[in-house]
Amino acid sequence: MNRRILVINPNSSVAVTAALDEALDPLRTPGGAEIVCLTLLEGPPGIETQAHVDAASAHVTAAIAREPAGAYVIACFSDPGLYAAREHTHVPVFGIAESALATSLVLGSRVGIVAILERSIPRHLRYVDALGLRDRLAGDRALGIGVSGLADEARTEARLVEVGRQLRDHDGADVLVLGCAGMARYRHRVEQALEMPVVDPTQAAVAHALAALALGWRRQPLHKES
Amino acid sequence: MNRRILVINPNSSVAVTAALDEALDPLRTPGGAEIVCLTLLEGPPGIETQAHVDAASAHVTAAIAREPAGAYVIACFSDPGLYAAREHTHVPVFGIAESALATSLVLGSRVGIVAILERSIPRHLRYVDALGLRDRLAGDRALGIGVSGLADEARTEARLVEVGRQLRDHDGADVLVLGCAGMARYRHRVEQALEMPVVDPTQAAVAHALAALALGWRRQPLHKES
Amino acid sequence: MNRRILVINPNSSVAVTAALDEALDPLRTPGGAEIVCLTLLEGPPGIETQAHVDAASAHVTAAIAREPAGAYVIACFSDPGLYAAREHTHVPVFGIAESALATSLVLGSRVGIVAILERSIPRHLRYVDALGLRDRLAGDRALGIGVSGLADEARTEARLVEVGRQLRDHDGADVLVLGCAGMARYRHRVEQALEMPVVDPTQAAVAHALAALALGWRRQPLHKES
Amino acid sequence: MNRRILVINPNSSVAVTAALDEALDPLRTPGGAEIVCLTLLEGPPGIETQAHVDAASAHVTAAIAREPAGAYVIACFSDPGLYAAREHTHVPVFGIAESALATSLVLGSRVGIVAILERSIPRHLRYVDALGLRDRLAGDRALGIGVSGLADEARTEARLVEVGRQLRDHDGADVLVLGCAGMARYRHRVEQALEMPVVDPTQAAVAHALAALALGWRRQPLHKES
Amino acid sequence: MNRRILVINPNSSVAVTAALDEALDPLRTPGGAEIVCLTLLEGPPGIETQAHVDAASAHVTAAIAREPAGAYVIACFSDPGLYAAREHTHVPVFGIAESALATSLVLGSRVGIVAILERSIPRHLRYVDALGLRDRLAGDRALGIGVSGLADEARTEARLVEVGRQLRDHDGADVLVLGCAGMARYRHRVEQALEMPVVDPTQAAVAHALAALALGWRRQPLHKES
Amino acid sequence: MNRRILVINPNSSVAVTAALDEALDPLRTPGGAEIVCLTLLEGPPGIETQAHVDAASAHVTAAIAREPAGAYVIACFSDPGLYAAREHTHVPVFGIAESALATSLVLGSRVGIVAILERSIPRHLRYVDALGLRDRLAGDRALGIGVSGLADEARTEARLVEVGRQLRDHDGADVLVLGCAGMARYRHRVEQALEMPVVDPTQAAVAHALAALALGWRRQPLHKES
Repeated sequence: MNRRILVINPNSSVAVTAALDEALDPLRTPGGAEIVCLTLLEGPPGIETQAHVDAASAHVTAAIAREPAGAYVIACFSDPGLYAAREHTHVPVFGIAESALATSLVLGSRVGIVAILERSIPRHLRYVDALGLRDRLAGDRALGIGVSGLADEARTEARLVEVGRQLRDHDGADVLVLGCAGMARYRHRVEQALEMPVVDPTQAAVAHALAALALGWRRQPLHKES
Repeated sequence: MNRRILVINPNSSVAVTAALDEALDPLRTPGGAEIVCLTLLEGPPGIETQAHVDAASAHVTAAIAREPAGAYVIACFSDPGLYAAREHTHVPVFGIAESALATSLVLGSRVGIVAILERSIPRHLRYVDALGLRDRLAGDRALGIGVSGLADEARTEARLVEVGRQLRDHDGADVLVLGCAGMARYRHRVEQALEMPVVDPTQAAVAHALAALALGWRRQPLHKES
Repeated sequence: MNRRILVINPNSSVAVTAALDEALDPLRTPGGAEIVCLTLLEGPPGIETQAHVDAASAHVTAAIAREPAGAYVIACFSDPGLYAAREHTHVPVFGIAESALATSLVLGSRVGIVAILERSIPRHLRYVDALGLRDRLAGDRALGIGVSGLADEARTEARLVEVGRQLRDHDGADVLVLGCAGMARYRHRVEQALEMPVVDPTQAAVAHALAALALGWRRQPLHKES
Repeated sequence: MNRRILVINPNSSVAVTAALDEALDPLRTPGGAEIVCLTLLEGPPGIETQAHVDAASAHVTAAIAREPAGAYVIACFSDPGLYAAREHTHVPVFGIAESALATSLVLGSRVGIVAILERSIPRHLRYVDALGLRDRLAGDRALGIGVSGLADEARTEARLVEVGRQLRDHDGADVLVLGCAGMARYRHRVEQALEMPVVDPTQAAVAHALAALALGWRRQPLHKES
Repeated sequence: MNRRILVINPNSSVAVTAALDEALDPLRTPGGAEIVCLTLLEGPPGIETQAHVDAASAHVTAAIAREPAGAYVIACFSDPGLYAAREHTHVPVFGIAESALATSLVLGSRVGIVAILERSIPRHLRYVDALGLRDRLAGDRALGIGVSGLADEARTEARLVEVGRQLRDHDGADVLVLGCAGMARYRHRVEQALEMPVVDPTQAAVAHALAALALGWRRQPLHKES
Repeated sequence: MNRRILVINPNSSVAVTAALDEALDPLRTPGGAEIVCLTLLEGPPGIETQAHVDAASAHVTAAIAREPAGAYVIACFSDPGLYAAREHTHVPVFGIAESALATSLVLGSRVGIVAILERSIPRHLRYVDALGLRDRLAGDRALGIGVSGLADEARTEARLVEVGRQLRDHDGADVLVLGCAGMARYRHRVEQALEMPVVDPTQAAVAHALAALALGWRRQPLHKES
C-alpha cells in the first residue's frame, strides 16, 4: 500500500506551498507516512474566483492521475476538483474546506470562518449549505486581503486577530477555521491571541489522510455505472 | 438593450441542441426576444461527470464573453459555469437546474427530479441542498440512460413515464423536473401520460430570461472587490 | 385554449389596480396573451390583516369561477384564496408572494422582503416557512406605511430605498421582493437607487403565467377524491 | 376574570359538537373553568377543503366577538381563523391542530397524524412546516373517510387502528394526533389497541386553555400598529 | 389510578422548592390532582453544570422509583434524568424545559429563553436543537446570576426585565420562557412589565401533567426490548 | 506536553477494552503518542440505557481528573460525560460518536449508523439532531444484539453485514458508522463485505486526538464564568 500523502496546492505560488509544507511538519513522524507538497505551476497565483475554482479542477485531477499516492489532499479552501477526483478512484481524496469543517465539529459548538475576500463568502455559504452544516456556522467574515497580500505578515496577523475576535465575540464562534491554505503560518499566533482552537484546513485534511492511510478507509468511487 | 437570449448547450451534440431549440418554439413570439441556441463543439458529447461539469465552465464563460446577449441560459442540468459567469457581468445568466427548481415551486408542493444516471443523483442532492430547497424535494430517481441513449425514443419515453410514476406515486411528487436538457422532446408526452406538470428545465430558464429582458432585472456581479 | 391572464386585485382600490396594470405593460407583446386586471370592489381598501386575507378568499374564488381565463394571478402579497382556488381547477393559479419568492431564487442568493407594516412580518415569516424557503431569506423589514399611504410618492420612495438599503447592507440581501402589489410603481426607482434586482411580485407572477400559457403547464387540482 | 372556555365547532354538525363536548368531560372539575361548546350552524357539515377553512374564519371571529370568554378553542384541525382571531385580542385563542402538535412533543419523539382524507395531507404538511415542526413528524396518513363518514363506528375504528399501526410500525411514530375534531370518541379505543399515547386535538387545546386561565397567560395581539 | 403529581426539585435548595410550590397554587383545584413538591437533599444547591445534570439523573430516577405517583415533573431546566426516567415506566414524566418550550409554541411565534448564566446557553442550544425547535427560537440570553443569587429579588427582577426586553425588542421574541425553576416567583412581575406571555417552566410542566392525569395519556416506555 | 492519549471504556468489560485496544494498533507509531486504554470497572457490563449513560458521566470525569493525559477519548457511543468533562479543562476530550460522525462527513455523502439495540436509536437520533447533522444521516438500524452478545462472532458479523447492506441499498448510505465501541473487531470484515468505508468510532476519535496532540488544538473550557 502506498504510504505517501500528496498535498496539491492548485495555485502557482511556491511561497504558499512552502508555508503549508512547513505547517505540516508536526504531522510528520519517524516511520510514518510521507507527506509531499506539490505546486501546480499551471494554476493562477491565487484561487480567488469561481472561474479559478472550476479551471483548477482539471489540473488537480490530472495531477492525481499522474502522481500515485495513498491519499490526496487538495490544498485550496474551495476544494477544486474534489468531486471530480472522487469519481474514478478508491483512493481517498480530501478537500481542505470539507475536512476543516468536519474537524471543527469536534473542537467547538459553532464555527467561524475567516475568508480572504468579501466575495468568497457567498461561495463558502453555498458550500456549507451543500454540506448540510449551516446549523453549526456562527459566521463568515472577510479579511479583505487577497492570496498574494497574505505575505504581508503584520497586516495579515492583525486582521486575522481582529476578524477572529468579531467571530468569537459578536457571532458566538468557539472554534475558527482559516478560510485559505495561505493562512497556515498564522494559525498558532491567532490561537494564542484569541485563546480558542483555530483549524488550519490543510493540517486538518492531512490529519484525516493520515487516519485513512493507517486504517485503510477507502471511498466508493462516485461512478458506479459502466 | 440587447434583445437576444443566448442558450448555450455545453455538450457537443447538435442533435440535443436541435431538440431543445425546437422545444423553445412556444416561447418565441412575433416581435419578442430572439432566442438563439449555440452548441459548444469543444465540449464532450454529454455532460455526465463532475469532471465534465468543471471543464465546461471555461467553455461556457468564454462563449458568454465572445457572444453579446441580453440574457444567457446554460442548457445543462449541472449548471456548469453558472457562478463563474455571474462573477463579472450584470447581464442575467440562468442555469437550467436552478431555474427549473425555482419554477417547480409555483406548480406543485413537492418536486420529483428525473435523473439520467444513478451517479447524477448525489450531484443533484448537493445542489438542491446548496439551494436550500431540500424540504421541497420529493425524490430523485434515475432513468439509467446516458445522454446519447436519450435518442432511443421508445425506451426513453417508457422509462420517463415509469420513473415519473414512481416519483408521483411512491415519493409523493406533484410536479416533475426533467434532469437533463436532452429530455426536452419528451416533456409533453410525459405530462400527458402522468397528468401532472412536467418542467423542461431549458424552457423554464428561457421563461425566466424572457421576464428578465422584459422587466430589466439585472444581477449584481458577484465580484464587488477590485 | 384560453389566452387570457386574469390578474385579480382583491382589494377595492382601483388606483392600485391601475398602477399594477401599468406595471404589467412590459409583459404585453403583440399577438401575445391578453393580460386583464380586475378590481374586487367587494374587498376592503387594503388587505392588511389576516381577517382581510381569509375574507378575500371567497371573493377571489368566486371571481375565478365566473371569469374564464387561461391562468389567474392573485395580486395580493398574502396570496388570499390561493390554495382554495387550486382545489378545483387544472387552470394554473399564481399567488404573487409565492411567485416572487420563487423568482428571487434565480436573481440572488438571499432575498430581502419589504413589508408594508410591522404586523405583516409574522404573516410573511409563517408563509416563507410553509414554503420551505427560510434558508434563502436575508430579512423582512417594514416601511411602516399602509396600503393607502403608498400613494404618497415622495415618502414611500424614500422609505423603500432606506429599508431596501438596510436589507442589502445589514441583512445581506442581494435581491429584494416588494411585499405589496401596491408598490409596483416604485420598482424601477428602487432598483436604480440600490443597484440590485428588485422583484415586483405581480410582474413575477404574470411572467410565470405567461410561461404556463405558452408551455401548457397545468397543476393537478388538489382535490383528488370524489 | 372570565372563567369560561368557549369551544367553537366551525362545522354545522351538532353530532360532532356533542361528541367532542362529551370528550371534554374529563377536563371539567368542580369549581373549575366552565367549558362550553358551540356549533356554528352557518358553517358547512364538515370543513374538508381550503375554501371551507377560509370561509370559516369570518364565522369564527364573529363568534369570538359576540361571545365573551376567558379563552377560546377553535375545534377544527385546520385551525380556521386562528391568526385572524389573534389579531385583535389579548384573550388566548387556541387552534386544535397547533395545540395537539405542541402537546405531542412532550408525549413522544415522532408524531404521526391521522388525516381524514388524502387531500387533507398537503394542507397538514404546509401547516407543520409553517410551525417549524417538520423534524418531529413521523408521517401523515389518511383514513379515506370524510367528516360525515366518521359516524360509522365500526369502519372508522377499524381504519383508525389500521392507519395508526402503519404510522407506528412503518413510519416510526411513538405518539399519534387525531387529525379531526370528529374523531374524539375513538381516542381511547385507539390508544388501547395500539398501546401508545393518542392525542385528541380538542382535548389538547382545552388543556392549554385551562392552563392559560389558571395562570393568566395572555398573548400579545398581533396588531401592534394603530 | 394515582392522582398525585410529584414535582421533583433536583437541587437541595428548600427555598427554591418552597417558591415553586407556591407558584403551583393556581393549578391546584378542589377535588383535583394532588401536587406535591419534593426537594432532593442529596443534590447540589443549584444545577449549574453538565456534571450536576448528569449526577442528578440517578437521584431523580431513584426518587421516581421510590415515590409512586400518577405523573412526575422534573423541576430543573436541564431536564436531568428525563430520558432515563422514561425508559422503564408508562407513567408520564415531564421535564420542565421540554414542557415550557412545547407550551411556548401556542403562546407566540418566536420564543426567548432567559438563562441564568452565560455557560447555560450552549447546553440550552443543544437541547433546542435535539428537540427540533431551533426555527422557533428567537434568542437565549443570560442574567449572569446563579441559582443562589436568584434570592436577591431587586437585582433579579431588574435583570429579568432587562434581558426579557432585549429578547423581545432585539431578538423578536413574542413569548418568554424562564430558564430556571428558581425564577418562578418573578413570572408575574416580568409579564406585567413586558406585556407579553412569560412561561414558568414548572407551571407549564404541571399543566401538562394535569392533562395527562385527566386524559390518561401514557408514554411508551423507551425500553421495548427484553 | 503530555503525549499520552487515554481511552476510557466506561463499561466494565475488559474483553471490550482488549478488543478496542487491539483495534487501535494501526494508529500507534514509533515515537508517536502513547495510546492507553482504561476499563472503568465501576461501570456496568454494557452502556445500554440512558440511565447507564447518565451514571457513567461521573465515573468518566473522575477518571479524567485522576489520570493526566494530553487528550482523552470516551469510548462509548453515547459519549457519556463528554460535555461534563469539557466544562473544566483545556485538554481536548473526544466522544466516539461525535468523532465518528464528524469523520464520516469526509468519507461519504450520507451516513448509516449500525445500532446495537432498537432502543438505542431514539437516543442516537436526538444526538444527531443536537449535532445539527440530520441532513447527512441516511438511516439508523439495529442489530438486535446487546453489548455482551457482540462476543458471538458468527452471529454478530452476519448481522453487521446484513444491517449494513440495508443501510447501503435501502437507505442510501455510502459510509457506515459502527454504533458501539464493542464492534471494533468487526470493522475490517464489514468493510470487505460491503466495499464501502466503515468507521469504527474509537479509531476515529483517537485519530482526532492524535491530530490534537500533534497540532496543539485545545478547546475552550465551557465554563467561562467564575
